[in-house]
Amino acid sequence: MEVVVIGGGAAGLKAAARVRRLNDEAKITVVEAGKYPSISRCGLPFYVGGMLQEAKNLLETTYGVVRDVNYFKKVKNIDILIETKAVEIDRERKTVKVEGKVNDELNYDYLVIATGSKPVKPPIEGIDEDVEGITFLHSLEDAEKIFEMWEEDAEKAVIIGAGLIGMECAEALHNLDLEVTVVEIMDHIVPTLLDEDIAKMVETHIKEKINLLTSSKVEKILNDGEKVTGVVVNGKEIETDLVVVAAGVRPNVDLAVKCGLELGETGAIKVNEKMQTSDKSIYAGGDCVECTNIITGKKVYTPMGSVANKQGRVIGDNICGIESTFPGVLGTAIFRIFGMNVGRTGLCEKELSNAVVGRTAGADRFHFHPEHKPIRIKLIASGNKIVGCQVAGFGAVDKRLDVAVSAIQMGATVDDLANFDLAYAPPFSTAIDLIIASANMIRNKLSGLVNSISPVEFAKMLQSDDKFTVIDIRTEKEFKARSVLDERVINIPLSEIREKVNDIPDSAILICQVGTRSYEAARFLMQKGKNVKVVDGGYAFFQPVLESYGIEVGER
Amino acid sequence: MEVVVIGGGAAGLKAAARVRRLNDEAKITVVEAGKYPSISRCGLPFYVGGMLQEAKNLLETTYGVVRDVNYFKKVKNIDILIETKAVEIDRERKTVKVEGKVNDELNYDYLVIATGSKPVKPPIEGIDEDVEGITFLHSLEDAEKIFEMWEEDAEKAVIIGAGLIGMECAEALHNLDLEVTVVEIMDHIVPTLLDEDIAKMVETHIKEKINLLTSSKVEKILNDGEKVTGVVVNGKEIETDLVVVAAGVRPNVDLAVKCGLELGETGAIKVNEKMQTSDKSIYAGGDCVECTNIITGKKVYTPMGSVANKQGRVIGDNICGIESTFPGVLGTAIFRIFGMNVGRTGLCEKELSNAVVGRTAGADRFHFHPEHKPIRIKLIASGNKIVGCQVAGFGAVDKRLDVAVSAIQMGATVDDLANFDLAYAPPFSTAIDLIIASANMIRNKLSGLVNSISPVEFAKMLQSDDKFTVIDIRTEKEFKARSVLDERVINIPLSEIREKVNDIPDSAILICQVGTRSYEAARFLMQKGKNVKVVDGGYAFFQPVLESYGIEVGER
Repeated sequence: MEVVVIGGGAAGLKAAARVRRLNDEAKITVVEAGKYPSISRCGLPFYVGGMLQEAKNLLETTYGVVRDVNYFKKVKNIDILIETKAVEIDRERKTVKVEGKVNDELNYDYLVIATGSKPVKPPIEGIDEDVEGITFLHSLEDAEKIFEMWEEDAEKAVIIGAGLIGMECAEALHNLDLEVTVVEIMDHIVPTLLDEDIAKMVETHIKEKINLLTSSKVEKILNDGEKVTGVVVNGKEIETDLVVVAAGVRPNVDLAVKCGLELGETGAIKVNEKMQTSDKSIYAGGDCVECTNIITGKKVYTPMGSVANKQGRVIGDNICGIESTFPGVLGTAIFRIFGMNVGRTGLCEKELSNAVVGRTAGADRFHFHPEHKPIRIKLIASGNKIVGCQVAGFGAVDKRLDVAVSAIQMGATVDDLANFDLAYAPPFSTAIDLIIASANMIRNKLSGLVNSISPVEFAKMLQSDDKFTVIDIRTEKEFKARSVLDERVINIPLSEIREKVNDIPDSAILICQVGTRSYEAARFLMQKGKNVKVVDGGYAFFQPVLESYGIEVGER
Repeated sequence: MEVVVIGGGAAGLKAAARVRRLNDEAKITVVEAGKYPSISRCGLPFYVGGMLQEAKNLLETTYGVVRDVNYFKKVKNIDILIETKAVEIDRERKTVKVEGKVNDELNYDYLVIATGSKPVKPPIEGIDEDVEGITFLHSLEDAEKIFEMWEEDAEKAVIIGAGLIGMECAEALHNLDLEVTVVEIMDHIVPTLLDEDIAKMVETHIKEKINLLTSSKVEKILNDGEKVTGVVVNGKEIETDLVVVAAGVRPNVDLAVKCGLELGETGAIKVNEKMQTSDKSIYAGGDCVECTNIITGKKVYTPMGSVANKQGRVIGDNICGIESTFPGVLGTAIFRIFGMNVGRTGLCEKELSNAVVGRTAGADRFHFHPEHKPIRIKLIASGNKIVGCQVAGFGAVDKRLDVAVSAIQMGATVDDLANFDLAYAPPFSTAIDLIIASANMIRNKLSGLVNSISPVEFAKMLQSDDKFTVIDIRTEKEFKARSVLDERVINIPLSEIREKVNDIPDSAILICQVGTRSYEAARFLMQKGKNVKVVDGGYAFFQPVLESYGIEVGER
């Protein structure tokens, strides 16, 4: 059996390795256009940021062996043709024509297309000029180009796009002491993956370190004929030495299109659950294919190294006659920026018409434990089914996100999740873990025990001239130190709610620090016939949103 | 409606608070024998170890308010009778007689028994002597007693029992600079919750800091008429100033028994899914009740603060007419000792006759990321269903454990788990997270792609005089630096396996550092007709086991 793999990234190499493990007789050839097989592209921003000693760390096994051509040949008996490009697939004759370091025509019984992605180049004036200082962050060569610019004393950088790569790149360049400006065309960072409230928390945090321009468009990249000198954003010029284009990626489907394989509705290669393309002898995986969203059943494009590895294994199995399927994705993503961990999975609130949301804020471990750090969770349900989760904070949000992933993928309801027997001890969590508290909050909402408005709805109310009363039920000390500076906001601490019940208007909005005290007060007041609503997640959630709407929060 | 709650711990107070939120008219009285309501007992070892400034930290809300009698009255309109003991329940008349600070007879429509647990006092000669220096670690008073002994210059401590509390206590006392000896009657630490292989890893680690005597019995506690002076263990005297009895807890069911409520097979109070006892007006929750193991359906006794909180909510719901059920537990537990995080859920390998186990060791995040730390995972399946997980390591094992908990609780197969779309970025995990690698290893075993022996089986083989060949397939450098010192162990690095295939005996055991290279080699050799087996998890798993069996591992 002859297997040809086009692309030496995660999906391609995983497929090749799996075939080898299942079939030692197969002739396996991997065609890789770049200099290196098995580059871990997810590591590039960390390489740029100086976390790695050498680029070759990205190619190493855990025991320090470089996974180069020789390694693959000796250990796995896999031939890798580097600096060689597959230029044409002949599906009739089952051959691949390759050019470059090796010029040949390779026969295949099975072909694996793992051609990855290309960075998106937005239509900006000057982006194609052949001058120094414009780059993507998509390859090791790109990373090295950025390094060179830095060594040549670049002082300022503009990043176009505040998506995942844009965010990681912003931290990396800041770590190199560059003055960083990130320009995002949408109204908040990571716009396709995060809801506004979570995005605003992150923005508040990162604005201390970098310049962030949202709802802003880079109209032009300027140069002096040799080097980049600046960009024009919303008509205003910003000086810069370096422009990193991080406007997302799209599937690299050129070869697939050329040989007539079907593309899916997302523009990526269409595959079935076995990762087979429209040609049964050709499999495809990784950043060049589209996936099924497990919740909606719809096709999505979610290029991720973790997904590519899973798909590679499925491809290897099926080529060797072991039936194996890849069920799809939830679109899970996570990143860290300046110490804040931010993640998401499943559907956003904004994608749903009937979302029931549980926002909670608190400590990631017992609040007397010295290592505890704040985290915020937004759990999203449709009916009582969990369909999404977004998290942000300085503590272990990734754990709660992975619990949500597991729950969603297994079709859990909020009742199921609320009873998960999660591991509890003071160094690891709270007796009621915040993800369980989030599920309980949704249960309370579904049972009609509490009515709420979202941080964004609250911001819009405060922007209006409408008459209403907001009761801040934190302590007087907390209220004076920092609260919403609006005349409609008054302070009645939770401990006085019962005695002052007759002073409370028939209708009010209740706010507190993280939402638990508001809920406590709301239950009492609702039973006294009051029409009260809480603002989900308290100041921890709404403060960044209010500030982004121009509403002041401060000392009284 | 009158509700009486006996016990002001997690279950009792949670039930009381939930009733209040659902019914503001109810008269709610909590009867608490101790001085403090709402003490977080899980925090006691941390208090002893000096992590908390003051004991009252254990009673505080996250916003710094002490949850005392006054707080509960003012905020929740709940009466707490502290230093008051419930002495008799009259089920006919629906009354509770209380004595102490308050002497009264309380009427109830619904009663909640949340009397918690008592420490087990093993039958050891001298344990009941009225001398200084013998204590449990079950109450704030116990913790303060330990503190006092320390202030009086105690230098040595013996802990009886190497369970969860014994382990946390060992670290706490070591942090106070006491010389600590832990004596455990069974052959490894945390014997009811951990398998031998995981326990040995932990033992190897903690033996650097404390004395650990397993398979050992404290036969006698010695004193000079005033103070403890030593213990006799296996006939030998050990000097000590302090003896902490950490031999587990049992349910406090005295009151329940006295009023004729049914106990379950575990000796704890029998409750249905609604947390109702054999008397429909009486609910019970927390450390005094038994739970259902979700996997086996069998009754178990698993006292845990996280469980108590969940049960309290269910009790409150049902009292107020909202149907609510508690599905049961997996017996999840976790602790940290000297920086090593150790956890478990579900069933142990030793409890199963048909266990299929995936042992993996690796980094908790990308191995080039500066924060990465080693973790080890033992995932346990019965058929293709995941039924248990044990973890140990210095990194984020709690995350992987919680994913396993979520998977097991939702009935996931290894195929399901292997495709969980877990969050991946270099600061958080590896592209193939180790919990997914563990699931894949089980899948490989179920497909017959690899045969394995366990670390304990390997130790027993090496103890025997049988003839066999073990091939250590790590690099020569690794082999020379540290390997199993046995003539039957030879070195053929993975990179030479293919060229030396004819030198390899027809039957062999393959070992490497974490198991991945052995698997790679095994697949090749099996296809060449060799009868090879790998040792699951490699040196990372078997080295501590071998050493505990007296087999040397060292430099060659």
